[in-house]
Order: sequence, then structure tokens, then C-alpha cells
Amino acid sequence: MFEFRLKNAADQVETHLTHVMASMGQLPVVDAMRYASAGGKRLRAFLVLESARLHDVPPDQAIWPATAIEAIHAYSLVHDDLPCMDDDALRRGLPTVHVKWDECTAVLAGDALHTLGFECVSHPDCHQDPAVRADLTLTLARAAGAQGMVLGQALDIAAETAGAPLTLSEITRLQAGKTGALFTWSATVGAVMARADTDPLQRYAKSLGLAFQIADDILDIEGDTQKVGKALGKDADAGKATFVSLLGLQGAKTRARALIDDACDALTPYGEHADALREAARFVISRDS
Amino acid sequence: MFEFRLKNAADQVETHLTHVMASMGQLPVVDAMRYASAGGKRLRAFLVLESARLHDVPPDQAIWPATAIEAIHAYSLVHDDLPCMDDDALRRGLPTVHVKWDECTAVLAGDALHTLGFECVSHPDCHQDPAVRADLTLTLARAAGAQGMVLGQALDIAAETAGAPLTLSEITRLQAGKTGALFTWSATVGAVMARADTDPLQRYAKSLGLAFQIADDILDIEGDTQKVGKALGKDADAGKATFVSLLGLQGAKTRARALIDDACDALTPYGEHADALREAARFVISRDS
Repeated sequence: MFEFRLKNAADQVETHLTHVMASMGQLPVVDAMRYASAGGKRLRAFLVLESARLHDVPPDQAIWPATAIEAIHAYSLVHDDLPCMDDDALRRGLPTVHVKWDECTAVLAGDALHTLGFECVSHPDCHQDPAVRADLTLTLARAAGAQGMVLGQALDIAAETAGAPLTLSEITRLQAGKTGALFTWSATVGAVMARADTDPLQRYAKSLGLAFQIADDILDIEGDTQKVGKALGKDADAGKATFVSLLGLQGAKTRARALIDDACDALTPYGEHADALREAARFVISRDS
Repeated sequence: MFEFRLKNAADQVETHLTHVMASMGQLPVVDAMRYASAGGKRLRAFLVLESARLHDVPPDQAIWPATAIEAIHAYSLVHDDLPCMDDDALRRGLPTVHVKWDECTAVLAGDALHTLGFECVSHPDCHQDPAVRADLTLTLARAAGAQGMVLGQALDIAAETAGAPLTLSEITRLQAGKTGALFTWSATVGAVMARADTDPLQRYAKSLGLAFQIADDILDIEGDTQKVGKALGKDADAGKATFVSLLGLQGAKTRARALIDDACDALTPYGEHADALREAARFVISRDS
């Protein structure tokens, strides 16, 4: 069920991204926006659509925040890949935007995708109640900004220049910003749109996000570059603290499994309706890419 | 009156930016955000506050979109100054962010200021009616994105790599995106917040934005680097088409004056209440920085 719905989420977002960018013409920046926002697992969009389904939010409304979060995620990857940031030449098995075009186009395409995310959540078709649209915008801004995703990035960079490697609690805080904030936003969207309690999904997403990052650190060691589609082993080579360096490979795997159990427990109020989200949690730590 | 109110707008925005960034801690990225968003003429914030005043919107609400537009403007300058973009070392007479810190910090600080703009317009204190907040977000996203400001930037870059210099109509379209879209958003905010007709202020801002850009091109030729606080003569040296290269220096001045007359005419419905906006229009073409 999960795989089918993940694929379905990916198809829907692909179509909707094409739709919202249809009137933007054929400038290199717009081509780069389309290129950078194509493909990927679409896990965040899946979380949005599933949490909407749990709360009977119509799919033609939920597609707007699903598209928004994928636009924001795409912008963050384009900027992260820049030579002055992680300097990555490969993403999803393809040349990164600054390699295929140039740095200037990558900066601008990232900026425009960033804005597009906010355009999608504030679009009238996203929800009939403007209070919901304003809420989605405010929470998305907080999750993406200097107290969310950018904070995580900034802590990551600060760690590189600091003398000592990060502790477990520091790296947990870093990842809560870098990955966790957008995961949490995605998973709670349905509850926000239905004006329902966000607590269970918040707990689910918090554990899921951390498990996702631990799995990423494990993939960085054990993964197959071909399947993952990006350079691996960079963190270990750079001597950076990761969950694996701090907990050991087995310790990291045990911790990830415990987090997934937590995540699944949090879904109890939704009964079997949340089975796809449970499968997603198990997928997150068993994926090979 | 205009100078007093412009100074007042600058002071208010300065205070409010400090307030909204107060809880962000002391990371280099946050320091860079504060540095990049300090100073400047604050013309966009002034436009927001004046259009709010014209429509009896309380100043403690209007300060939110005023701060938002200055955060967005600051982000655009930080990214424009990057080596891969305009490669400017000086801004407002001070080292640019990537010079004072590094490129990575500049990319991230710009990104976080970008997000902060959307956080400000969707903040509950910005307006009691969430429909207004959602509207401000949607229109800001459209003005800043790939059909507004980023479009202008992209056209500017495309022009540099194209063989032939731009025509007058091409450069007018470019500037309508690059400067005009955010000017128009700023000047119409008060009408949007009061649910009033935005047409007169839209007409005002359209002429004002274009006149502003023509004045910029004139300053690039006639200005004093010390006063302007950034490198001058770059466009002429690069053989780029500007309003001055296309219309001649006198022709550009005549055109700018005609646009300012248009802008002032558009304000007729507001009578003498709009005198500060009229003064602002005259300032835009007489400024030396």
C-alpha cells in the first residue's frame, strides 16, 4: 500500500508542479526550477497527502501544500549542493543545477522555488478558509527559516569550523532543524487543514525525522553510490560527527528501530487508517537510496 | 514631511527587525541576517507605512508588511552581490555579506531573510483578518518569484549572455520585475489591508518603480561612489543597455520626470493626504544615493 501511495504522491506532485510552473516561460532559470523539482522520493509530499487523507481533507486541496513542501525541499537541495556549501556534483543520479547550468542560475532557481512554496500554500484553491492558509504559511516559514531548516544548516556549518566534533544532543538538535522541521510540518498539514489535534502526528514526525537522518548516516557508510545517486562517505572522510560515529553502526541501527517503534505508537489514535504511515516509517530505515 | 517620515519608517523597521530576530541566537548566519537587513533608505517600508496611513490601517499592524518587504529586499541584495551574480564587494558603503563572512553564510542568510519576509506577513499580529494575511502572502510571493523579481533578475542575466543589447521595451519589462513588482506590492499594502481599491496606488507605484530604475541608471553615470556606497559605472563598462544608453542622459531625465508626473497624478483620489508619497516620487529622481 505504501509503495503505491508514495508513487501516487510522486505522480500527483509532478503533475501539479508542471501546472503551477506552466505560465513561467522558457528562461534558463525556469528550466532549472523544473529540473531541480523533478524526481526524488517525494516522502514529504506523501506525508502531506496521507495526513490529509486521515482527516478527510480533499486531495485537490492537499496537493497544494504537498507541492509547496517539495518546492521548498528542492530549493534547499539546490542551494546545499552549491560549491560554497556541500559542493556536490550529483543529485538523484544527475548533475546538480550549478553543474548543468551555472552557480548564478542555481542561486536564482533555488530562490524562485523557495518563493513558489509560499505561493502554493497561500493559493485560494489550497483551502476555503483563509485562516488555514495563513496558518500553513506561518508554520511553513517557521519550519524553513532561521529557527528550523536554515538553523540546522547553520549549525552544521558551525560544527565544521569548530574544533570538537558534535555531541549526540547537539547533532540531534541540528537534525531536528535540518530534516525534522519540514517532516513535522508535512505530517501535520492534514490536521491543520481539518482544524484537528496535531499532537499524534507531531510525535510521529519527530521520531520519523530523526530515524530518517540516522538511516542517512548509515547509508553514507553502507550505501551503494549508484542506488543513492549522490556521493557517499563524505561525512566519514571529513571526520564529521554522525549518528554512526557516535553510536556505532549497530547502535545507530538499534536507535533507528526504536524511533520507528515510537513513531508507529504515536499513530494509535488513527487505528488502521494510519497503516500507510506505519509502512512509511519502516521504509525510512530500510531504504537503499 | 517626506524626509521625516522616511526616517521614521527606517527607525520603526530597524526596531521591528531587531524584535523579530531577537530569539534567533548568535550564530554567524543570524549575525549576517542582522547586518544585511540593517540600514538602507527603507523606501519600500515607507511606501507600506504611507499606504497604510492613507487607509487608516494601524501602524502596529502595518509594521509587519513593512518589515517583510525590507527582509525580502535585503535577501535579494545579499544574493545579488554574490560572486556568481554581480560580484559586489561594497553595499551601503560596507563590505557585502560574502566578503565580511563567506559565500556560504551569504547564501544561507539570504535564504533565512527570504523566509522571514513570509513569516512577517502571515504573523497573526499583522492583521486580525486571516484573509488579508493570506492575500498579502500570495501577492508577496507573486511579486518576489519567477514572475516578478526573480524574473527580472533572470532576464538581466539572459541579456548579459545574449548577443544584442536589450531594447527599450525589453529593459522596461526587466525592470518591472526587478524593481517594480516589490514597489507595487509595497505601495498597495495599505489598500489590501483596508480592503480598498488598489488601482490608484498600483498606477503610482508602476511609474515610481520605473523612474527609480531610470534614476539608478543615471546615478551609475553621474553619481559619487562615496555617496552611493557601491561600485558605479559597471553597466556602462560592461556595455549593457540601460535607460541612459537607450534614451541618452537628457532623454532619461525627461522620461523620469514624466513618470513622476504620472505617479503624482495617480494620487489625485487621496488629495493632500498623499503629499508625502508625492514628495517621495520627487525624491526618487533627485536622490544622490
